[in-house]
Amino acid sequence: MTNIAIYGYGNLGHAAEKAVLNAPDCALAGIYSRRGAAAGKTQQGAPVRAAGELFTRRGIDVVLNCGGSAKDLPVTTPLLARNFCVVDSFDTHPAIPQHFAAVSRAAAEGGTLCLVCAGWDPGLFSLARMLTGAFMPRAALSTFWGPGVSQGHSDALRRLPGVADARQYTVPVPQAVENARSGLPPVPAQQCHRRVCYIVAEPSADHAEIERRIRSMPDYFSGYQTEIHFISQNMLAEEHCFFPHGGSVIAVQKGSSAAENLYAELKLVLGSNPDFTAGILAACARAVHRLYLRGERGCRTLPEIAPVWFCPQEAEVMRGTLL
Amino acid sequence: MTNIAIYGYGNLGHAAEKAVLNAPDCALAGIYSRRGAAAGKTQQGAPVRAAGELFTRRGIDVVLNCGGSAKDLPVTTPLLARNFCVVDSFDTHPAIPQHFAAVSRAAAEGGTLCLVCAGWDPGLFSLARMLTGAFMPRAALSTFWGPGVSQGHSDALRRLPGVADARQYTVPVPQAVENARSGLPPVPAQQCHRRVCYIVAEPSADHAEIERRIRSMPDYFSGYQTEIHFISQNMLAEEHCFFPHGGSVIAVQKGSSAAENLYAELKLVLGSNPDFTAGILAACARAVHRLYLRGERGCRTLPEIAPVWFCPQEAEVMRGTLL
Repeated sequence: MTNIAIYGYGNLGHAAEKAVLNAPDCALAGIYSRRGAAAGKTQQGAPVRAAGELFTRRGIDVVLNCGGSAKDLPVTTPLLARNFCVVDSFDTHPAIPQHFAAVSRAAAEGGTLCLVCAGWDPGLFSLARMLTGAFMPRAALSTFWGPGVSQGHSDALRRLPGVADARQYTVPVPQAVENARSGLPPVPAQQCHRRVCYIVAEPSADHAEIERRIRSMPDYFSGYQTEIHFISQNMLAEEHCFFPHGGSVIAVQKGSSAAENLYAELKLVLGSNPDFTAGILAACARAVHRLYLRGERGCRTLPEIAPVWFCPQEAEVMRGTLL
Repeated sequence: MTNIAIYGYGNLGHAAEKAVLNAPDCALAGIYSRRGAAAGKTQQGAPVRAAGELFTRRGIDVVLNCGGSAKDLPVTTPLLARNFCVVDSFDTHPAIPQHFAAVSRAAAEGGTLCLVCAGWDPGLFSLARMLTGAFMPRAALSTFWGPGVSQGHSDALRRLPGVADARQYTVPVPQAVENARSGLPPVPAQQCHRRVCYIVAEPSADHAEIERRIRSMPDYFSGYQTEIHFISQNMLAEEHCFFPHGGSVIAVQKGSSAAENLYAELKLVLGSNPDFTAGILAACARAVHRLYLRGERGCRTLPEIAPVWFCPQEAEVMRGTLL
């Protein structure tokens, strides 16, 4: 049995609660939030506890840190890692080595085992890129994201002056997906994805100015085909209340003739991005707990853990049934 | 650098040779066959060596055992494992625990590290089943094989009296694939696949009797929708000279509403089954050699090895680039 505490009770924290309750070998060891009881009650009717209380509790095997990558995780994962085994879903790709180093240091100090950057990208998609790249060393590898809501891009929109709320959908360009499937070499992400923005502007805001700022935002929107729609807060709440996402990792290696090409695709269509991510986090908590009990310490990412540790079954059962 | 010897020089052995030569960090340490020099010359013009010579050679890090699952591997992998680290592609699912136990004993005696059942099923598909099952514990999981040539079924046909040669294609039933994608519960493999047989009969053979025997063969054909075509040896050589295969692992977990369903599919379309399998074997040899150097001994299957070991990159580089 793995006793799992959830730290942070937003979309991902709520999904993590469901995932822990669904896992046959996991138990919920409390939900903790900076907002404390103001964050509401848990699904089972218990009060959400104040974040600080976590450090006084016993019997917690793993903490799922369900905070956001931009502001929370770089601070809270190293902090928690000094006291607990922690799993997080840090997903700011360029900052991964720095985050990994900070959590490694904290885990070494605390004698804990942590797994960072768990989710589907980075995470399951990283595994797919890595394995297809290793198995087909001459393959053209492409990753497509969407159609789905990008939290990072939605947050970037919300930080603009005059924007009250926003939702950004990332949509792959069908022709680019077809090109990748037929084995053409990868092209920059800007040519493979459209960005569709739904903006709730503040009453006095200048729409043209908001639009100008969006289109010129480097990394996020500049260079992308970007659609911008101004809508009301009500419409946002009604029509954009789900958090779907998904995408594909496509690998094609040319053979000596076209008839001998090798093609592999991992495709995800996620009605709820938080639900899928939370399912991964719960399985990671199981793996971390088992490996901690075997004496492993430090920091890991998903590809650094043998897949069998994520399964409730033991290796011997797995070989006889799932292999 | 991993020095790899290839044992067995049939379709898989030839593909393994290409895969080893393609891997930037692997070198070919000879090709060995029971037929010895009668098996021809290697791609690089060297003679194929007699199987027994292998045991007198030095400087071999890993042996890729490219024999067949039915007769060769249960005997030769344990034999080789007493002297070498070995990777094989044993794929007789029900016999896996027995094969694993035999190779484990041999590896323990020899102080070697072996990886058995490497390939795409068992292998990459096992990983896909295991990870999607762990990440989505309530998911309906289905595996489809084909369209493609099944070696096992082709061999079973060739063993029938009156059959000179044969090729069997496994073809998924489109409606069954659609049902799986829409999240319906899995149904028996017999309802999901058609079997299409091309038979070269011996001159005096009774076609009706061959057909009767095929249709009543338990496990292999009985219960399947089976098509049987009698063709000439020339036509077999001309029209069925490739070894394509592929398939899908499909996992669908229902959400609280249909809009929140989670769907994951790993799809392979392999123009050459031996080429893809060989690419996996070469990456497995790399992983086995690295883990052996770190002191690991015994027997493993693919899900028991952290994916990062299959990649030529070190973990630190992987975290900064591939993750």
